[in-house]
Amino acid sequence: MAPSVTVDTINPKVLKCEYAVRGAIVTHAQNLQQQLQTNPGSLPFDEILYCNIGNPQSLGQQPITFFREVLSLLDHPPLLDRDDTHALYSADSIDRAFKILDSIPGRATGAYSHSQGIKGLRDQIAAGITARDGFSANADDIFLTDGASPGVHMMMQLLIRSEKDGILCPIPQYPLYSASIALHGGTLVPYYLDEATGWGLEVSELKKQLDDARSKGMTVRALVVINPGNPTGQVLAEDNQKEIVEFCKNEGLVLLADEVYQQNVYVDDKKFNSFKKITRSMGYGEEDVALVSFQSVSKGYYGECGKRGGYMEVTGFTPDVREQIYKVASVNLCSNIPGQILASLVMNPPKDGDESFESYTAEKDGILSSLAKRAKTLEAALNSLEGVSCNKAEGAMYLFPRFDLPNKAIEAAREEKIAPDLFYAQRLLYATGIVVVPGSGFRQVPGTWHVRCTILPQEDKIPAIVTRLTAFHEKFMAEFRD
Amino acid sequence: MAPSVTVDTINPKVLKCEYAVRGAIVTHAQNLQQQLQTNPGSLPFDEILYCNIGNPQSLGQQPITFFREVLSLLDHPPLLDRDDTHALYSADSIDRAFKILDSIPGRATGAYSHSQGIKGLRDQIAAGITARDGFSANADDIFLTDGASPGVHMMMQLLIRSEKDGILCPIPQYPLYSASIALHGGTLVPYYLDEATGWGLEVSELKKQLDDARSKGMTVRALVVINPGNPTGQVLAEDNQKEIVEFCKNEGLVLLADEVYQQNVYVDDKKFNSFKKITRSMGYGEEDVALVSFQSVSKGYYGECGKRGGYMEVTGFTPDVREQIYKVASVNLCSNIPGQILASLVMNPPKDGDESFESYTAEKDGILSSLAKRAKTLEAALNSLEGVSCNKAEGAMYLFPRFDLPNKAIEAAREEKIAPDLFYAQRLLYATGIVVVPGSGFRQVPGTWHVRCTILPQEDKIPAIVTRLTAFHEKFMAEFRD
Repeated sequence: MAPSVTVDTINPKVLKCEYAVRGAIVTHAQNLQQQLQTNPGSLPFDEILYCNIGNPQSLGQQPITFFREVLSLLDHPPLLDRDDTHALYSADSIDRAFKILDSIPGRATGAYSHSQGIKGLRDQIAAGITARDGFSANADDIFLTDGASPGVHMMMQLLIRSEKDGILCPIPQYPLYSASIALHGGTLVPYYLDEATGWGLEVSELKKQLDDARSKGMTVRALVVINPGNPTGQVLAEDNQKEIVEFCKNEGLVLLADEVYQQNVYVDDKKFNSFKKITRSMGYGEEDVALVSFQSVSKGYYGECGKRGGYMEVTGFTPDVREQIYKVASVNLCSNIPGQILASLVMNPPKDGDESFESYTAEKDGILSSLAKRAKTLEAALNSLEGVSCNKAEGAMYLFPRFDLPNKAIEAAREEKIAPDLFYAQRLLYATGIVVVPGSGFRQVPGTWHVRCTILPQEDKIPAIVTRLTAFHEKFMAEFRD
Repeated sequence: MAPSVTVDTINPKVLKCEYAVRGAIVTHAQNLQQQLQTNPGSLPFDEILYCNIGNPQSLGQQPITFFREVLSLLDHPPLLDRDDTHALYSADSIDRAFKILDSIPGRATGAYSHSQGIKGLRDQIAAGITARDGFSANADDIFLTDGASPGVHMMMQLLIRSEKDGILCPIPQYPLYSASIALHGGTLVPYYLDEATGWGLEVSELKKQLDDARSKGMTVRALVVINPGNPTGQVLAEDNQKEIVEFCKNEGLVLLADEVYQQNVYVDDKKFNSFKKITRSMGYGEEDVALVSFQSVSKGYYGECGKRGGYMEVTGFTPDVREQIYKVASVNLCSNIPGQILASLVMNPPKDGDESFESYTAEKDGILSSLAKRAKTLEAALNSLEGVSCNKAEGAMYLFPRFDLPNKAIEAAREEKIAPDLFYAQRLLYATGIVVVPGSGFRQVPGTWHVRCTILPQEDKIPAIVTRLTAFHEKFMAEFRD
């Protein structure tokens, strides 16, 4: 028999889907890493520096002690009844673990929970949102998820009926959006961020693209906004956010607000505002705007990517649609409980007066101020390179520099049948071990070339990265300069 | 503006999807539970007994100590360097945690892993499979997942292109299959298990249904087999499994083997055999049969539903199709690390000579022998009821008794516009607080009525359940007897 499953007979939506953050360049890097292990000294560098993905702990960032203490206790609750435990854990982590345990039905830390997540934890998260925004949040609106990605998939699955359904997405965008739209068979309707104004989001551009899509017979269902921006790092101003909310209200679009970098703001003149807060501050309620806010434990100063915790706050949908969202959530039973617990902790960290407060604050501030410093250093280094310009990372974890590549390099890429930014990124990897993602994986204005580079390598690694990057770039330009 | 999202404008596949295990009956039960809290004594019972779902720890089953110790240590690795830790944890859990920590790149327990899961853990799982089957398994074939469900979704997403693509599923089936097929827009091709022969799986029935589907222009892509059966509890005989493998090979079908109950076998004359073992024992290799085996940490004697750990072992696909599976896995980055760790532990529990071996064995045997006892007691109780017949639970966690309901009861259900088995289950709930799932949620031979009832309530609860169930049933029959 012929093989029953071939690439020609699988779901073409799967074939179409692309996910550059873990794409070809990462496979190359993993092969090189293996080569370094089996044959040390065989490459011009001795380690691979993964700047392709927002994965802080893989690059040496340490977890927040308080969060891990609580998780550790709740993984083995009999510890809570032992005196010896006080020698190993802080008093407030023990106290918090007790409180959480009491909020879990039957104190069963190993049971499936309610499909939206444990009610007591959702109460904690709603309280955290209320404190953040100054507008009340409701535990019934919270859906706990395994990281932010499953929530995005769930909403795409709900909204997309066919390729005639469009989702407005920023370009450049985080490829989760293009991938999930492709997998669910919809159409990505692009709107372009303006690189010249620090990746500005113009409502006139939204309107233009919306009208254009509609004129082609598309039904545009939702607008994705990533704030702080990924891969672009901009932080939206309050007035801009108000325009966006108004636009969604007027055009009947669901606002999908990716707010996973809400703790990652590095400039004094900008501040994160949730779209929920903005919407409520404009006097708009449930009837006015359908809004889904995504949050994750993977980002922020905590960077707990491996725990796969997160939530979406779902407001402005009718009860019967909400029921459908609940049904889809229930097909996977529930998200993982440690991730649920961690989501409640990041939304309710230690408070002044708690035993851990001082060490917690020191850990948090240390991470955030170091990230700000690294962002500045890398940004300056990139801007000093010939033909490279890089906007400020106001927030998130990335720089997205633009490369004006020489024609000869573009020609060489064409000969290899790859995009010029992939050509550059591959050369960089093979020369230095530094892994960045080509801008084409995020989409970009045609004819422009970028790469996304995280700001996550530890501070002591940054000087070497700058040196290697600069030397590589000079050599590259010398080779290909027109 | 009209609301932008209504049930009439969402994805019709979402509307079509049903998931009875968490359906209407559970919502009723949750409401009653709330009523018991706010108004104790207002109902004829004082607790809700959730027999609707395989969620052992929610009904009082305790976690396996060794597994939880290792997880607790790895949630807070600094413990491993503290002397005090030895007072609280067993020596082999500390040793195992060290080994696992060393196998995690950068010892980063909070980082995204490889999209298939941490390589060192996959090595452990492959070793566990090899020991189980006597045929070698390969870490590259393992995809770690958040429970078994995401793996099933991934395969449905890969295989289903349109409603012309069919998936052969047992009837009765676990509604994850009907739900995921509906969500991905395919068609469930039913094959009926034979209740009269203990839910026998006849290859002649498979062939008949396959031919029938093909004659209607369908492309049947895969065969789902659940062994031990859910909701039906049968354990397949080796010869029967060989016939099934032969059938898949001859017909070019992917064999999707749901083997999450592999540790749950309660009869001496049956034994779990993985389809991988059967396939290899027939001399078939990668070229002969495409086989995906699903395993979960939620079931077995461990019952760690809340951890959302599991894996699929993917064999018999071409490298380019494998690459597509990997791509889909990578869009969600990775499954949760504690779940990954737990999956490696259940496939490699303590061994003779380890400090925890004795207590581990006592915990494991205690749970499994108690489940066997509960299954027998409940089965006997059900069989003693008028008009009820119940096959043996040879394995898994469920009984699926058949109710020959009186015509008057069927008539009464029709008047309420609900299925007779839902009518019975609702009456049972409101009279006793016992939650079971109507057979219609799993599908059944038309005109027959069943419910699924777990064997999971703790032993001390069983006598009361039997008493309440028996009293309810007698009253029900007295009311509706023809």
